[in-house]
Amino acid sequence: MEISELGEFGLIERLAREIEVKNEGTVKGIGDDCAVLAPTAGMRTVVTTDLLVEGVHFDLSYVPLLHLGYKAVMVNLSDIFAMNARPRQLTVSLAISSKFCVEDIEALYDGMRKACTKWGVDIVGGDTTSSLTGLCISITAIGEARPEDIVLRSGARPNDLVCVSGNLGAAYMGLQLLEREKVIYDQQVADLRKRMGDAKAKGDTSELTALNAQLSTLSQPDFSGREYLLERQLKPEARGDIITVLQQAGIHPTSMMDVSDGLSSELLHICRQSQTGCRIYEERLPLDYQTAAMAEELNLNVSTCALNGGEDYELLFTVPLEQNDAVQALEDIRVIGYITDADKGCALITRDGGEFALKAQGWNPLKKE
Amino acid sequence: MEISELGEFGLIERLAREIEVKNEGTVKGIGDDCAVLAPTAGMRTVVTTDLLVEGVHFDLSYVPLLHLGYKAVMVNLSDIFAMNARPRQLTVSLAISSKFCVEDIEALYDGMRKACTKWGVDIVGGDTTSSLTGLCISITAIGEARPEDIVLRSGARPNDLVCVSGNLGAAYMGLQLLEREKVIYDQQVADLRKRMGDAKAKGDTSELTALNAQLSTLSQPDFSGREYLLERQLKPEARGDIITVLQQAGIHPTSMMDVSDGLSSELLHICRQSQTGCRIYEERLPLDYQTAAMAEELNLNVSTCALNGGEDYELLFTVPLEQNDAVQALEDIRVIGYITDADKGCALITRDGGEFALKAQGWNPLKKE
Repeated sequence: MEISELGEFGLIERLAREIEVKNEGTVKGIGDDCAVLAPTAGMRTVVTTDLLVEGVHFDLSYVPLLHLGYKAVMVNLSDIFAMNARPRQLTVSLAISSKFCVEDIEALYDGMRKACTKWGVDIVGGDTTSSLTGLCISITAIGEARPEDIVLRSGARPNDLVCVSGNLGAAYMGLQLLEREKVIYDQQVADLRKRMGDAKAKGDTSELTALNAQLSTLSQPDFSGREYLLERQLKPEARGDIITVLQQAGIHPTSMMDVSDGLSSELLHICRQSQTGCRIYEERLPLDYQTAAMAEELNLNVSTCALNGGEDYELLFTVPLEQNDAVQALEDIRVIGYITDADKGCALITRDGGEFALKAQGWNPLKKE
Repeated sequence: MEISELGEFGLIERLAREIEVKNEGTVKGIGDDCAVLAPTAGMRTVVTTDLLVEGVHFDLSYVPLLHLGYKAVMVNLSDIFAMNARPRQLTVSLAISSKFCVEDIEALYDGMRKACTKWGVDIVGGDTTSSLTGLCISITAIGEARPEDIVLRSGARPNDLVCVSGNLGAAYMGLQLLEREKVIYDQQVADLRKRMGDAKAKGDTSELTALNAQLSTLSQPDFSGREYLLERQLKPEARGDIITVLQQAGIHPTSMMDVSDGLSSELLHICRQSQTGCRIYEERLPLDYQTAAMAEELNLNVSTCALNGGEDYELLFTVPLEQNDAVQALEDIRVIGYITDADKGCALITRDGGEFALKAQGWNPLKKE
């Protein structure tokens, strides 16, 4: 169904139909000039926002809209968790070009709803409009935390341990894989189209029929054995579970942020805002086997990918040295280094003992290459 | 300066430099994964968001970036006021194409800061990224109100008076004026260019010089006497003053929303959500003299413009009949009709006593014409 058949209000009504409010704190959701929320007494509110633009942040030739919706929400929830807070509500604004139909937007919303359901978050409002080119998604997420629980980027102190959840670089490898297969697939299509043109010019109808059949059955790339990398890229999970684990273990990070632009970039943010330096050990970087295998296949340095890859949506945090035993006992969390005085700078210690200054080579969409 | 010289973080730093936090409730502004807010005890939080897309919502050939920034904020504050709430914070996300320089974005931000300063609002966060085409602005505004003060769209009751602040249709007339002058100006440029091409072909250098001089001094349109219409279109003011006036007069609206898509469209929202009908009198529609004069010049029905024009950002609200005297005593507020039972429908009573069903012919960016 074409979106123009429904118009803005019809589309919103259709999308809002399936949205149920789950939080006590959501007094009024979609349908008025504003959403109305009742903050829990004594709690702080945290707010984050992200803008995703087609062609810059996602390529719809290999990103299904369902996954895109899921990811768009998760990247915002990740920022809420990075404050040691809990997400409660979000607003979704979409600018939609005429190439999308109602079912496309429903698929996108379905993905967003799935991500929200996972973390008990209410979609409470938004804006839906047209776009001259492509899709644009703006999400604002709202969360809550007790004042004493909130963790900023600026609280790291010398001798604190630097920790990271999960593993790094896999989402970047997933992207490389998708991009590579896209190029191969596009090339195959272009070759077939060219041969079909030649056959047509020659009037060779049997050749044309054969090529047409080849085109229609042109196989999608085989990603078997690489599913984990694709999942990390297409369907990342915000690490709310880590927040719970730390709380249960009585560990209160001194600083925290999520790894969206790459570990190096995030470490530099924490150190700059905390006025410290850091030492990170290459051998301690958490890597999945598939990430290492893919890096080798693509002839990339896997440590560089882990440091600068981005989109891992893991949590990077620091804890006081005294909590070493407590943090080492936790699953899926790795101590990768420690915080130093600012004058020591931020460095990576390589496997052979070399020391290299960390650089923010991750995602920076406005920076000149 | 090119934006790529600064990159995302450099640009944010530069823009954030001039931002001062004014609200006690703003604990932490720009610079972490989330902004941190301390809601006032016992208050409700209200949240609204708007997405503005170049070529759909604004035309930079006649909208200065300073005004665009101002307006982008005001349209969000207007939604906060429409809940009978007070704005406190907002987040700003921008997708910027390479045609913009740092100074452009600073002008845009300058306009946003001016609007925020006027209403004591803090810019607490956002996202800045690149775009393949044009400018995209997403703003989320957060406000507060006492639970008992909040006014929804759904509270109108039969016999309530329908009131509107200010006047209607002027912003639409301003847009018509700007669009008309743009066409004329573009035509003049095209004509001169064509004549220059002819002169060049003939080798008539003196004619070419003369035409070149004409082109460089081609006058911008003269808008004198029409300033009010332009201001209503380019620099709308959210009516926070009306909220204060109503409060001081002890008037609590039963329903309220702001007029952004056109009076008819908004009245239909209020009546549908309140399960009522309404009668509105054409002769009561508040019009500015310039709106009427411009409508005549353009051969448009001024009432149609007032009903469907949109972008007025006035407040439309209902009050109980008993408050007739109180509301009539207020400046800049006009009673334009009354609420009926739902089965009476929503109608306009014309000057000659005719009755016409109200239709939502206002702004609906996704609807087929």
